[in-house]
Amino acid sequence: MSKKNEKQFVEDITPMEVDFPRWYTDVITKTDLVDYSPVKGFMVIKPYGYALWEGIQQYADRRFKETGHKNCYFPLLIPESLLKKEEEHVEGFAPEVAWVTHGGEEELAERLCVRPTSETIICHMYAKWLNSYRDLPYLYNQWCSVVRWEKSTRPFLRTSEFLWQEGHTLHETYEEAQQETLQMLGIYKELCEELLAIPVVCGRKSDKEKFAGAEATYTIEALMHDGKALQSGTSHFLGQHFSKAFEIQYSDRDGNLANPYHTSWGISTRLIGGVIMVHGDNRGLVLPPRLAPIQVVIVPIAAHKGNVMETVDRVFDELKAAGIRVEVDDRPNYSPGWKFNEWEMKGVPVRLEIGPKDIEKGQATVCRRDNLEKSQLELENITESIKSLLDNVHESMLANALKMREEKTSVASDMEELKKVLEEKPGFVKAMWCGDRACEDKIKEETGATIRCMPFEQEQLSDRCICCGEKADKMVYLAKAY
Amino acid sequence: MSKKNEKQFVEDITPMEVDFPRWYTDVITKTDLVDYSPVKGFMVIKPYGYALWEGIQQYADRRFKETGHKNCYFPLLIPESLLKKEEEHVEGFAPEVAWVTHGGEEELAERLCVRPTSETIICHMYAKWLNSYRDLPYLYNQWCSVVRWEKSTRPFLRTSEFLWQEGHTLHETYEEAQQETLQMLGIYKELCEELLAIPVVCGRKSDKEKFAGAEATYTIEALMHDGKALQSGTSHFLGQHFSKAFEIQYSDRDGNLANPYHTSWGISTRLIGGVIMVHGDNRGLVLPPRLAPIQVVIVPIAAHKGNVMETVDRVFDELKAAGIRVEVDDRPNYSPGWKFNEWEMKGVPVRLEIGPKDIEKGQATVCRRDNLEKSQLELENITESIKSLLDNVHESMLANALKMREEKTSVASDMEELKKVLEEKPGFVKAMWCGDRACEDKIKEETGATIRCMPFEQEQLSDRCICCGEKADKMVYLAKAY
Repeated sequence: MSKKNEKQFVEDITPMEVDFPRWYTDVITKTDLVDYSPVKGFMVIKPYGYALWEGIQQYADRRFKETGHKNCYFPLLIPESLLKKEEEHVEGFAPEVAWVTHGGEEELAERLCVRPTSETIICHMYAKWLNSYRDLPYLYNQWCSVVRWEKSTRPFLRTSEFLWQEGHTLHETYEEAQQETLQMLGIYKELCEELLAIPVVCGRKSDKEKFAGAEATYTIEALMHDGKALQSGTSHFLGQHFSKAFEIQYSDRDGNLANPYHTSWGISTRLIGGVIMVHGDNRGLVLPPRLAPIQVVIVPIAAHKGNVMETVDRVFDELKAAGIRVEVDDRPNYSPGWKFNEWEMKGVPVRLEIGPKDIEKGQATVCRRDNLEKSQLELENITESIKSLLDNVHESMLANALKMREEKTSVASDMEELKKVLEEKPGFVKAMWCGDRACEDKIKEETGATIRCMPFEQEQLSDRCICCGEKADKMVYLAKAY
Repeated sequence: MSKKNEKQFVEDITPMEVDFPRWYTDVITKTDLVDYSPVKGFMVIKPYGYALWEGIQQYADRRFKETGHKNCYFPLLIPESLLKKEEEHVEGFAPEVAWVTHGGEEELAERLCVRPTSETIICHMYAKWLNSYRDLPYLYNQWCSVVRWEKSTRPFLRTSEFLWQEGHTLHETYEEAQQETLQMLGIYKELCEELLAIPVVCGRKSDKEKFAGAEATYTIEALMHDGKALQSGTSHFLGQHFSKAFEIQYSDRDGNLANPYHTSWGISTRLIGGVIMVHGDNRGLVLPPRLAPIQVVIVPIAAHKGNVMETVDRVFDELKAAGIRVEVDDRPNYSPGWKFNEWEMKGVPVRLEIGPKDIEKGQATVCRRDNLEKSQLELENITESIKSLLDNVHESMLANALKMREEKTSVASDMEELKKVLEEKPGFVKAMWCGDRACEDKIKEETGATIRCMPFEQEQLSDRCICCGEKADKMVYLAKAY
């Protein structure tokens, strides 16, 4: 058995300042979140990584249901003819789908694509089901995996298969669909803040960056440690694009045939990548307490002595009974120091050390992962102390992430300034944009940065476009992005 | 809006005595459980049907976790070369897999199959991960969809794509793996009894009927209304077949390289078909209370009068607060009779009618779906009454299903008797079998019945094989099956 010392542990992970992509790869593989599969671009999500997804699912599913949505399941395979019905959509997705051509020993008459997203098959079914305005709204969601053939992949962030949820709703009016689109974006924002301790910028995508077939795409954008943005969830107002292409019709309140308004929205396992890159440090993961599969790990010190294990077991039972996700690391062949390092690497928010000296003083030593601060907690009322500590850690992590984002957010008024800022202080750059696609393309070409969104909270930085210098009334967030 | 009367409702569903398959199709489509998709053999699971799957998932996932299992996720697509590594396995599955041949615009160098089950990809990863006996056992599970190209399909019962869970575990010893195999079968049995109110026969499959690549397959078999059996869950003891084929090795306690013992086990959306066919009647679904998405529906009578809606709302709040899944049907355009029929068709276990006369007497009228009995409940303590009523309904449904199964279970001692019994009283037939494949084949050929299992509870009916008349010491359950 390897008995690593602290130095070796640290050496396992490339420091993020040295090579951020290698730091990321080291962290996700050494903490057993994920592994590479024999099919290029496909990942295996290991139990510790999957538990993070379960945490996200639980939160989101509860919020979806509270807002009246129900889950269902649509087929994995979509006929090519359906994919082609909405023109912009097929252009966007056809180049990256996987095609099933044979079923059993027979060649299929029509190719089937493995769903890259399910608007088409769902609209086909909605057209069959919908009759009357009384049936509306349709508020449905599905949890599934989708496949998009990617050339260059990185676990969680961009993979040829990923897990996600996709909501698909139909409404009587433009306004109601618009409201739904923004409501779901709001839930995603709250998920990021309340569960993942990640602050996000909410806004609208430019036409260039919107979903293939959407009238408008709204996004939440988070900023990573390396100053790159991560699109963390999107909500699409699809208008009547699909409902017309798929001939979804119903008799409205006046008895006339009408096409409903349509939304779709999704978050994916990509969020896990965000958690790693917003909170992680050179020791490894730092998991937000409400998401962490293990919130508290208890490490007994001199476990063979006196009443150590008895106290450890009692504290464990107490915390567990209070609904805290707690584990005891009583492996005999590892030193406490080794254990400390391992659980730090795995990002467990709170470590409790309980040894003879602690017990003598009626205390336990507590170390929080986010700032590595150690302190003493009274064994009496330890459950309440731990609960408020976990909340405290959450709040600190959210505040620190916000501080980090603010430090990495700049303003630029022309292209030279933009290039300089992106070079010297990678992050979000706030700028004015005239709205022209030509300027948007030029910004990307010359700097590698894209318009992440037109934020809901607009500021009038100037009245001139950062690129062409013409009149501009849109403030945008620019950044290089994952 | 259609205003059906009771007669029309009943006419919607073909009586099961007239045409059982049509009854089944009528029930699943008219109750909005499922729909047919544009891809032959693929189903759409609608919200009411998906809620049943969520109920099954919740129960099973809790039990899996209580027994130390963790969830993870393996890729959807498996390289052809991996599928071929275990000889029996590829023979069993290759004829029914869907093949992906193109990714994006390129033809793939190696075909990928859409997983029909994941032993191969999982074993490939386990071989990479496993080092030492200290890492064992591996107790992992995944929830996903699988594809098996079927020629003849029926929603839930046999579809080209279905949702399931597949557990895959590795163990140091033969005994421990054997114990795991049976433990999981036991959990499936309890799920059927405690959640679905379906009694099952537990036993071992014959070599002919076992999983492709298994050393032994264990099964739970339920009996449907029409006397056909439904294999409702299987647990496979895989021995070292896959661990040798995939070279999964670890250093054992003596420092030697060893192959672990291996199990896999699964249940699927097929169970929903079982629920329908065990409990349903000519009015439609009869859902077991612990599974039912809506356990209690409250129908206000003369809702506009006096304090009807006030009482309805109070009862609703009380039941909801107690964790009962309750809904109020206050649709103004439907008569109470119409609502009664609709909720009966949808199988809601308990209906509460609350009208001015009930309120005057401090009562509500309650009608249970399983036997359609009506009675009165005091409005005081109604929550407790409903809780015990729901338990009562569960117990009755389980007892009735058991009674039905016993009535449809016969004994046969020779082939003539077997044919006669299968003709006159379709169901399980208990018989002795010598163990020869030739007899097993002949039974199937001549009667259409298969050996469902060699039950754990053996009876010595005679000492002669039902088919060849030679010495026999195995009692088997025979039946035609889905």
